[in-house]
Amino acid sequence: MVAVVGGGQLARMMAAPATALGVTLRVLAESPDASAARAAHEVVVGLPGDANAMADLLADHVPTVLTWEHEHIPVAAFDAAGERGVPARPSLGALRYAQDKIEMRTKMDALGLPNPPWAEVHGADDVAHFLRAHGGEAVLKTARGGYDGKGVRVINSVADAAPWLAALATGGPRLLIEERVDFRRELAVQVARRPSGDVRSWPVVESIQRDGVCAEVIAPAPDLGPRLDEEARRLATTIARQLGVVGVLAVELFEREGRLIINELAMRPHNSGHWTIEGCVTSQFEQHLRAVLDLPLGDTSPVAPWTVMANVLGGERVDLASSLVAVNDPGAKVHLYGKGVRPGRKVGHVTVSGSELASVRARAAAAAAIVADGGVT
Amino acid sequence: MVAVVGGGQLARMMAAPATALGVTLRVLAESPDASAARAAHEVVVGLPGDANAMADLLADHVPTVLTWEHEHIPVAAFDAAGERGVPARPSLGALRYAQDKIEMRTKMDALGLPNPPWAEVHGADDVAHFLRAHGGEAVLKTARGGYDGKGVRVINSVADAAPWLAALATGGPRLLIEERVDFRRELAVQVARRPSGDVRSWPVVESIQRDGVCAEVIAPAPDLGPRLDEEARRLATTIARQLGVVGVLAVELFEREGRLIINELAMRPHNSGHWTIEGCVTSQFEQHLRAVLDLPLGDTSPVAPWTVMANVLGGERVDLASSLVAVNDPGAKVHLYGKGVRPGRKVGHVTVSGSELASVRARAAAAAAIVADGGVT
Repeated sequence: MVAVVGGGQLARMMAAPATALGVTLRVLAESPDASAARAAHEVVVGLPGDANAMADLLADHVPTVLTWEHEHIPVAAFDAAGERGVPARPSLGALRYAQDKIEMRTKMDALGLPNPPWAEVHGADDVAHFLRAHGGEAVLKTARGGYDGKGVRVINSVADAAPWLAALATGGPRLLIEERVDFRRELAVQVARRPSGDVRSWPVVESIQRDGVCAEVIAPAPDLGPRLDEEARRLATTIARQLGVVGVLAVELFEREGRLIINELAMRPHNSGHWTIEGCVTSQFEQHLRAVLDLPLGDTSPVAPWTVMANVLGGERVDLASSLVAVNDPGAKVHLYGKGVRPGRKVGHVTVSGSELASVRARAAAAAAIVADGGVT
Repeated sequence: MVAVVGGGQLARMMAAPATALGVTLRVLAESPDASAARAAHEVVVGLPGDANAMADLLADHVPTVLTWEHEHIPVAAFDAAGERGVPARPSLGALRYAQDKIEMRTKMDALGLPNPPWAEVHGADDVAHFLRAHGGEAVLKTARGGYDGKGVRVINSVADAAPWLAALATGGPRLLIEERVDFRRELAVQVARRPSGDVRSWPVVESIQRDGVCAEVIAPAPDLGPRLDEEARRLATTIARQLGVVGVLAVELFEREGRLIINELAMRPHNSGHWTIEGCVTSQFEQHLRAVLDLPLGDTSPVAPWTVMANVLGGERVDLASSLVAVNDPGAKVHLYGKGVRPGRKVGHVTVSGSELASVRARAAAAAAIVADGGVT
């Protein structure tokens, strides 16, 4: 049995490979109607900061391993697992680099891996100094708690930073400031690592963001060339090994002038890897289960020349029946997350594979847009 | 919501596509630890002949449609659905041809479709007469209730038929006798049909039986040629249309001297179609859900030149961890059914895809054998 903290779509999509492998999937979901609650084999309702909920998650048939589908995990949750002798994978020693961007940047520097210029922000002076040194524009981030564009803002003046600086002064989250990388495009690479050390990587993908949210993933990244593909995979493998990650690691990258710069880390299945469900022999969800269970890792080869994933960003409503009728594309693989719909929220995704990129991409985008509009064309 | 009667592996494997499509899957399982009970979103424990169980299956959030994962469905179950306004798909009008081999043979004759020579057996004289006319050997079958080689026996004398004749005389199942077809090989073809009439077929496969149980499926059937592929697909499409099947229909065929002969029908996902999970754009399980929900059918194209499925026929025990370690094939897709293991019982399957048939076939067989032995090599 695998216990997962978090009831979102990432836990939900672990259910299918868990069933295939004959592994029981027990999730800690924030509510009984969370995305993963229906799909999982067993559900405990609660939050990882709640000792009773953690006790229930780890009780009865004691799980073989505890894992996470998001980074917002309090230390107490690791302690709860440790007390019961259930290994937590990834461990706190690894996960803290995905939880805290200052820890991450500091560690990447120490390992000599490619960060953008960055600094911790203790007050307005640090912001002013960094802006002067970097052309008057920078990216301000909270060290913890951000996702999908939250906790990140582009600033052009100290005044732009004022609300977060005020929060910092009164005990708010620590802040860091980074160069606004003038990138050609965003890439992502995923690897999975077993406790025994075995690592496998997937092909590098291009991710296309809109309003700070991933809209589209193209696999493999077009015209990347073997040098950058190899370099990105080696970079992610190094991070997984050096940080002791167990499970799936996603590294978001900027490509600038033929070089890679690290943007973010995630130590769990990741939106940039949803394409692997249909697009690869082994999906990121199956591989995460295999890795945290210390089972042999699966083949990460792609099964089609091109696979494109487009997120369904919620419109007014999502209605399966009218959507599938309107999509009218028998090769569009629709994944709905069973979440309440609100504008801009990720409520599903569509994957299309094929041999001609332009057509595959257009089909995925068209299908996702139709599903997002509830089948209204 | 889709309600399914039956808690075996066929209902279990509907859960993954149901989750992806955002469809709730409620199963009527014969016990709380049935194969599908863990994987399904909602479980009612009971049998389709039990009015209370059927009431629970069709109550609360009333399902959109009721379907079946086996043929052993009493008429009362159809009545229960009809009373509540829940369509039963396939309907009794179609399913009776999969329930009763005498009905099936009679209907195929009426449609001019290729049956072997056969006759209903009312007593020993019919057996003696048929044996004399067909070289002293024939296949005796019960009209209802057979599966996996049960309800079927090869006979060479009236004496061989004596136990079933005695049962018939005292109210046992009706019997039919068929020519023992001297076939080159066994094929299977699947189609899915929506209520609106749209039909899609998958490539024709070769199925290899051992001791009356399917051991291996090769997709597509090697060296079949376009004529027989087309003929088999057209045959299945005709049967689906003429019998009014809704959902997936599997037609098991004999190939003899370049001609096809109908062996059996199944109106549900079928063992000969498990390869479609990894091997096709749309699996038989997703297609069955789409068909019974009257949603547009998915693309049935294969995604690899060859896909081979090998059944895991239970040995002493099945142990996932040691099996996957021992299999040592990162491209072998293992599906376990969460069933109690007993010798010869189908407890899982393994699928391998690739471009070289001999290697794909050997890998699937080796992996299935290792899993069946619980990882003991």
